[in-house]
Amino acid sequence: MPDLELPAFLDADDHRKIKAVVQAALAAVDPEQAVRRVLRRDGNWLMIGDRQVDLDDVDRLLLVGVGKAALAMGCAAVEVLGERLSGGVLITKVINSELQVRLPASITVLEGDHPVPGERSISATQRLLGCLSGLTERDLVIGLISGGGSALLTWPVDGVTLEDMQTLTRQLLVSGATINELNAVRRRLDRVKGGGLARAAYPAAMYTLILSDVIGSPLEVIASGPTVEPADEGARPLEVLERYQLARELQPGILRALTREQNARDRSPDYLRTANYLVASNETAARAALAAGREQGFDSLLLTTYLEGEAREAGGILAGVLRQMAASGEPVRRPGLIVVGGETTVHVTGQGIGGRNLEVALGAVEKMSGLQKAVLVTLATDGEDGPTDAAGAVVTGETQAQARAAGLSIQQALMENDSYTFFARLGGLIRTGSTGTNVNDLAFLISL
Amino acid sequence: MPDLELPAFLDADDHRKIKAVVQAALAAVDPEQAVRRVLRRDGNWLMIGDRQVDLDDVDRLLLVGVGKAALAMGCAAVEVLGERLSGGVLITKVINSELQVRLPASITVLEGDHPVPGERSISATQRLLGCLSGLTERDLVIGLISGGGSALLTWPVDGVTLEDMQTLTRQLLVSGATINELNAVRRRLDRVKGGGLARAAYPAAMYTLILSDVIGSPLEVIASGPTVEPADEGARPLEVLERYQLARELQPGILRALTREQNARDRSPDYLRTANYLVASNETAARAALAAGREQGFDSLLLTTYLEGEAREAGGILAGVLRQMAASGEPVRRPGLIVVGGETTVHVTGQGIGGRNLEVALGAVEKMSGLQKAVLVTLATDGEDGPTDAAGAVVTGETQAQARAAGLSIQQALMENDSYTFFARLGGLIRTGSTGTNVNDLAFLISL
Repeated sequence: MPDLELPAFLDADDHRKIKAVVQAALAAVDPEQAVRRVLRRDGNWLMIGDRQVDLDDVDRLLLVGVGKAALAMGCAAVEVLGERLSGGVLITKVINSELQVRLPASITVLEGDHPVPGERSISATQRLLGCLSGLTERDLVIGLISGGGSALLTWPVDGVTLEDMQTLTRQLLVSGATINELNAVRRRLDRVKGGGLARAAYPAAMYTLILSDVIGSPLEVIASGPTVEPADEGARPLEVLERYQLARELQPGILRALTREQNARDRSPDYLRTANYLVASNETAARAALAAGREQGFDSLLLTTYLEGEAREAGGILAGVLRQMAASGEPVRRPGLIVVGGETTVHVTGQGIGGRNLEVALGAVEKMSGLQKAVLVTLATDGEDGPTDAAGAVVTGETQAQARAAGLSIQQALMENDSYTFFARLGGLIRTGSTGTNVNDLAFLISL
Repeated sequence: MPDLELPAFLDADDHRKIKAVVQAALAAVDPEQAVRRVLRRDGNWLMIGDRQVDLDDVDRLLLVGVGKAALAMGCAAVEVLGERLSGGVLITKVINSELQVRLPASITVLEGDHPVPGERSISATQRLLGCLSGLTERDLVIGLISGGGSALLTWPVDGVTLEDMQTLTRQLLVSGATINELNAVRRRLDRVKGGGLARAAYPAAMYTLILSDVIGSPLEVIASGPTVEPADEGARPLEVLERYQLARELQPGILRALTREQNARDRSPDYLRTANYLVASNETAARAALAAGREQGFDSLLLTTYLEGEAREAGGILAGVLRQMAASGEPVRRPGLIVVGGETTVHVTGQGIGGRNLEVALGAVEKMSGLQKAVLVTLATDGEDGPTDAAGAVVTGETQAQARAAGLSIQQALMENDSYTFFARLGGLIRTGSTGTNVNDLAFLISL
């Protein structure tokens, strides 16, 4: 857990309280801690959530993982599983050598392509599936899934290329297909998505720990749900293509593959021995912040973990909530804390440096102007907001006046999407270093 | 109080409860009710808020009012003041003849120009100030102020025209002046703004009832504060012009007037006998809704009365709060009600028909999709959202599916700013008719 650096302009006691809240949020979603909460071992018993497995009944115990947090989750799992671990494969975006040295030689560590899937992802996926071949009912696979898994774990079915998939995605989006329809089609064209990884492990049992980077944590969406057989898809893939009159425009290999896969799935029995466990999410971080806030004496409230929309607009709206907190002690009394989770969007039009969380903060500055003892803290839980070395920023009722005194224009910074430069000059940046986790973003609305 | 028409798709009991909440909000800010809450008479005693005046000590009792609600407020005040009323002037945007007939002949009713002030506003203002000339310490003026007053009540100082004022406003805005600086300058160039009306009434006492159409209800901002001497303005007008290097570009009459007015104000003693009473605001409506919600069994919470920003973005963010309500019963348990007040903005790019509140609703549709027993109600308290005959709209978790079934595209409607047509076709409009009041907008987030 890297040290948390908050701006110095908060008074010492407030600084300590706010730091405790932010730190609790990040600690709760640390990948290693998250794995250890759900995966435990007591001698011959392996506990996964509320499930108990007698390791005497297990022949091979394999570990496969994919995502940006695969190595951190892997280190914790390896330490829990101990000498019983037979081997496995972890696929991540960038191999962190400090984590890699903690893994035994039996664990193969590979890099895939992210955010655009490519040949490295396919070959890593083939290696991972290879280690699951020939398993029996007496084998057990522990899966580890985190954000980025959709690009890192991919292997189109025969007759379909990654380029075909990209073209199809564009065609469906232009035709007005919903994200659910889009996913229903794409899942059928990839060997691993939509439960394919769990099918590959069968007849072994597969228990998977999932760290969510998707708002609301729908398990079939995180990393495209490699261990989750999607429930009712609403529409079958061929019907979706029919609906948008795309059947004729499609690359013929796609149509053949969809027909073949649909027939195969229609015959596929309900045979999977699989269970999925959400080990950490935006909500985990938000609830840890709430608990820490209560410990620090804050009247604490969760507003939402579903914040979406344009970052600066979200900032303005959160500032409006802070104004009410200041005006009437609603919806929380002083000292009060409102926790907000989610992930906003920045439509970049300028040439500046910034990120979602920094722009939420910048968008709040004007509307918070003049508020007494009001603080907004924004935080990317991965510690890296956009292409910057900051996780977010701190805004108070004095920030506007300070910016003015420093000759910094808020309007200009917004126009240039230059939130990082703005807060770097003013001194409001939060630095955590890379946290190794990603459960989207948080914002803390505080009245002291 | 016009009847409230809610869409028929809510079940009867839910319909009744939601209607009770919305109706309570509108009733609380009805101009006549608002005046009667603060202005009462008991024989020879006139009560204004917590102040008591013995009418035996009063020679002339005058009534002056300005704003879109001037006639409605005036009717209530006339009925309270009764036979003791000597006369007065009311200036409004459009004379409502049903209200006008309730006023005695001693009350002159005039129309001004709105939203752009013009000659009718100036001549009406002159008439109004005329009725205050020659008052003594034994006279009492009751003032009534509501939204629109800034354009309706205006009279530039000698040597300055309305066009000069508009040019100056543009120059200051382009130069990056803040709204406070802008107001500091403009107030000095108008006889009535920034306390000018109260100065005109002096040495008579003037007690003013204010219906707020400004977020946060700063009294010096509502109708440009004709009875409110602005406190610390931060900067003096000439210094503002200096700061933005505008002194040379200005129309010379403005500079002369500012110099003269500044000298006059610097000499002006603290002589005003005035008091201002906020009789209704967005917060009044929001609190009435909360109280009614509690009566109907809702776990009720005020989120903010300071909602601002792009309407569709606000809609998406409110939908995110509704998702949390549905997921975890936070920040309110089912049945739950969150009240949000403020005023959003629509940046119009399309050719459709709509308004702020309708677009907030439209912006929430997708993100509310699939939620069980979740309802969003948006409401323009004046009953007229944009150029439409609807006050707002109702959105539920089924709205997206209904739109789809009806062949209506949400994206298309957003692109065209065509929220009215969308909800008119789908059947989600709320109609109240013109309410005669304006305390900005409300939104109700409901989990049933």
